[in-house]
Amino acid sequence: MLFPILDLTEARQTLLRRRSWAQTEYPPALLERVAALFGEPLTPEAAVARILADVQRRGDEALREWSWRIDGVAPEPWQVPLAAQREALARLPADLRTALEQAADRIAAFHRRQPAHSWLHTDPHEGVLGQIVRPLDAVGVYVPGGTAPLPSSLLMAAVIARVAGVRRVIACSPPMRGSGRVTDVILAAAAIAGVDEFYALGGAQAIAAMAFGTETIAPVDKIVGPGGLFVTLAKRQVFGVVGIDGLPGPTETMVIADVTADPERVAADLLAQAEHDVLATAILLTPSRPLAEAVQLAIARRLESLSRAEIIVTSLGSRGGAVLTPDLETAVEAANAFAPEHLCLSVADPWALVPRVRHAGGVFVGEYSFEVLGDYVAGPSHVMPTEGTARWASPLNLEDFIKRISLIALTPAAATELSPIAARLALAEGLDAHAAAAQARL
Amino acid sequence: MLFPILDLTEARQTLLRRRSWAQTEYPPALLERVAALFGEPLTPEAAVARILADVQRRGDEALREWSWRIDGVAPEPWQVPLAAQREALARLPADLRTALEQAADRIAAFHRRQPAHSWLHTDPHEGVLGQIVRPLDAVGVYVPGGTAPLPSSLLMAAVIARVAGVRRVIACSPPMRGSGRVTDVILAAAAIAGVDEFYALGGAQAIAAMAFGTETIAPVDKIVGPGGLFVTLAKRQVFGVVGIDGLPGPTETMVIADVTADPERVAADLLAQAEHDVLATAILLTPSRPLAEAVQLAIARRLESLSRAEIIVTSLGSRGGAVLTPDLETAVEAANAFAPEHLCLSVADPWALVPRVRHAGGVFVGEYSFEVLGDYVAGPSHVMPTEGTARWASPLNLEDFIKRISLIALTPAAATELSPIAARLALAEGLDAHAAAAQARL
Repeated sequence: MLFPILDLTEARQTLLRRRSWAQTEYPPALLERVAALFGEPLTPEAAVARILADVQRRGDEALREWSWRIDGVAPEPWQVPLAAQREALARLPADLRTALEQAADRIAAFHRRQPAHSWLHTDPHEGVLGQIVRPLDAVGVYVPGGTAPLPSSLLMAAVIARVAGVRRVIACSPPMRGSGRVTDVILAAAAIAGVDEFYALGGAQAIAAMAFGTETIAPVDKIVGPGGLFVTLAKRQVFGVVGIDGLPGPTETMVIADVTADPERVAADLLAQAEHDVLATAILLTPSRPLAEAVQLAIARRLESLSRAEIIVTSLGSRGGAVLTPDLETAVEAANAFAPEHLCLSVADPWALVPRVRHAGGVFVGEYSFEVLGDYVAGPSHVMPTEGTARWASPLNLEDFIKRISLIALTPAAATELSPIAARLALAEGLDAHAAAAQARL
Repeated sequence: MLFPILDLTEARQTLLRRRSWAQTEYPPALLERVAALFGEPLTPEAAVARILADVQRRGDEALREWSWRIDGVAPEPWQVPLAAQREALARLPADLRTALEQAADRIAAFHRRQPAHSWLHTDPHEGVLGQIVRPLDAVGVYVPGGTAPLPSSLLMAAVIARVAGVRRVIACSPPMRGSGRVTDVILAAAAIAGVDEFYALGGAQAIAAMAFGTETIAPVDKIVGPGGLFVTLAKRQVFGVVGIDGLPGPTETMVIADVTADPERVAADLLAQAEHDVLATAILLTPSRPLAEAVQLAIARRLESLSRAEIIVTSLGSRGGAVLTPDLETAVEAANAFAPEHLCLSVADPWALVPRVRHAGGVFVGEYSFEVLGDYVAGPSHVMPTEGTARWASPLNLEDFIKRISLIALTPAAATELSPIAARLALAEGLDAHAAAAQARL
């Protein structure tokens, strides 16, 4: 069944199971491809570790070799000059350019409003305590390219870095296999976002170059943005050497709808989700069986006109469906347990449900706030936590591009009062040089 | 030389070199110990991966076995009841109890002041956009124990989790090898912080239990707190399954001082830093050779009375020293390039330097705001980024215990205006089901 209708108990065993990075199993075809590439059977993790170590050791030469072996491209020089970014922008159809610019403006406007300021607590006796907020020095944005270029992903990261005040924003995106060039629309997005350096590089080798640096690419402090499996595994392995934003996996949408929802619109939203990827998840939660059935029908009918129907059939068939819940509150609880990337509230009174939402990347309130607007132009980043990581992670936002420095400026009087406490605790921990430093102030 | 005096050029090749997780080499003794434990030569990473996989698969049974094999303890039942936490608190010397309570109060007060609120932008035409801030559901705090119990580390994490509103705060700390019990002062700190569940477990197996869960321990959403090598490697490997706060390594202090600084106090602060660990870093940056020499002398003299002199001699000998800089501004630039965990400004006008500080975990302004106060009682967490990660990471703070949910609630009018932009970008990305979802609102 393309879009099955399940009851909650049944769904908990299947559609709503908790996902996790810890449960990853790789398809045999992928493992075969890795074995062919490396001349021996390797896990994808081990393959990525090998690429990272090689680029760290041999720099540009390794970068060149892996780009050719894995992506079949020889992008040299790999830095795309700023002039070429601007030329690509000039070549773009006017309506597409305007759309990119409007999206960038709205992303910037949203994140300029996000409060992320230094703060101080001052007290005449105590002195000053607080946090200094500073932008990161250098950020690398990975942009999926090759067969499916996603200029929106570039905007959804680079524009926020710019708003945060990051000094150096670089981007890596793989060139297309045929032309060996990065597609215009990605370069145009880079020009709009104000990317300082653009490299026609992809995969784990691009992540390695940004993390460790090479002869031609200075390392960055943090790497952000979604990518394929090798990119995500590489980001995971360089975490600690640099910061990373998260490990975005296949995209997920849950729609909570009641009998007032328009089944055509609900179906359109679920189909939009499902076309991303055969691993995408699109789930409807509703107390209304008639709505579920109407959505099921609308999906089948609308599917016929869509170019990515094959992908949709696979993703909806394995990870999609409608779940019947006793009421809307239970639907929200099921969504909290799943912690979806996107949670859409297509119900008569969506604001009544908002206070119950605890775990989601983004919540889309009402059927006019549909997920596709969030993908491109609403303002918040579309890079949101997946695979249940919304339990603890946030969408990409201003906080990803700044850090805090604790500031401690106590008065001598406060220090004198606090020193005996510090000395007592230091002695309990067996650290007498700590106690001595406290005594040096008494 | 115990505490050499170097010029800046020389220091850049040695003391001030950029550190990174990517450069880790393990001492032969450690590799031998791992080989003995596992019956074959394994990297520490591979050893940790094996422990994690085993606990994930076999749960409590694996936890029991690894605790015995690695830590030589058989803590069963491993959950320490709340009553035992309270009894430990009651047994504590009154002055120590008071010191712990005062520290906890100040940590709570500081983080209650940190702004981390939901925010909304409302516009009559556009609707509502913003971020909802929610506390995490469940957090696990790792507390170093065994030979060197650090109750302050428990407070510096668990108290902040409580302020953030985390529902379930659990802690793991290894029992002492001899008694098989967790020391009173750690349990007392847990009682004061309000830890919900306390487990007498340590090492990579404790991290595995918190990340994956076992029959007796429910998994958490995020793991925080410092630990030894196996703990840190395990945190790195479970990142993605759960959130982690960072990968704290050996502690680091840089003191920038001028001729007005008291050499005894500077020496005391550097010695306090150096006693932590043979890998600790304690560096003085100063334009004043007379001060550097006076500090060198004071260190040698003060060292004699300290119980951890052996550790100090090793750490100061290999990673400590004074660096002569042309002026204070250059000293701050050198500190920014190093991105130390702690940066102490013992100069006549410390506030003049604060605006130049870009990369540090915490900045300690003036000689009365000395680092040991920050370790215990100033208020900000002493869990701060090390090994240069202050370039992109923050001290543990309220943000670690909350996450943001993007909120999108557009008016129908705004959605109608934005839908063509979204549709245009969707078509450029080849996603026609996305475009269809936008068209369904027009």
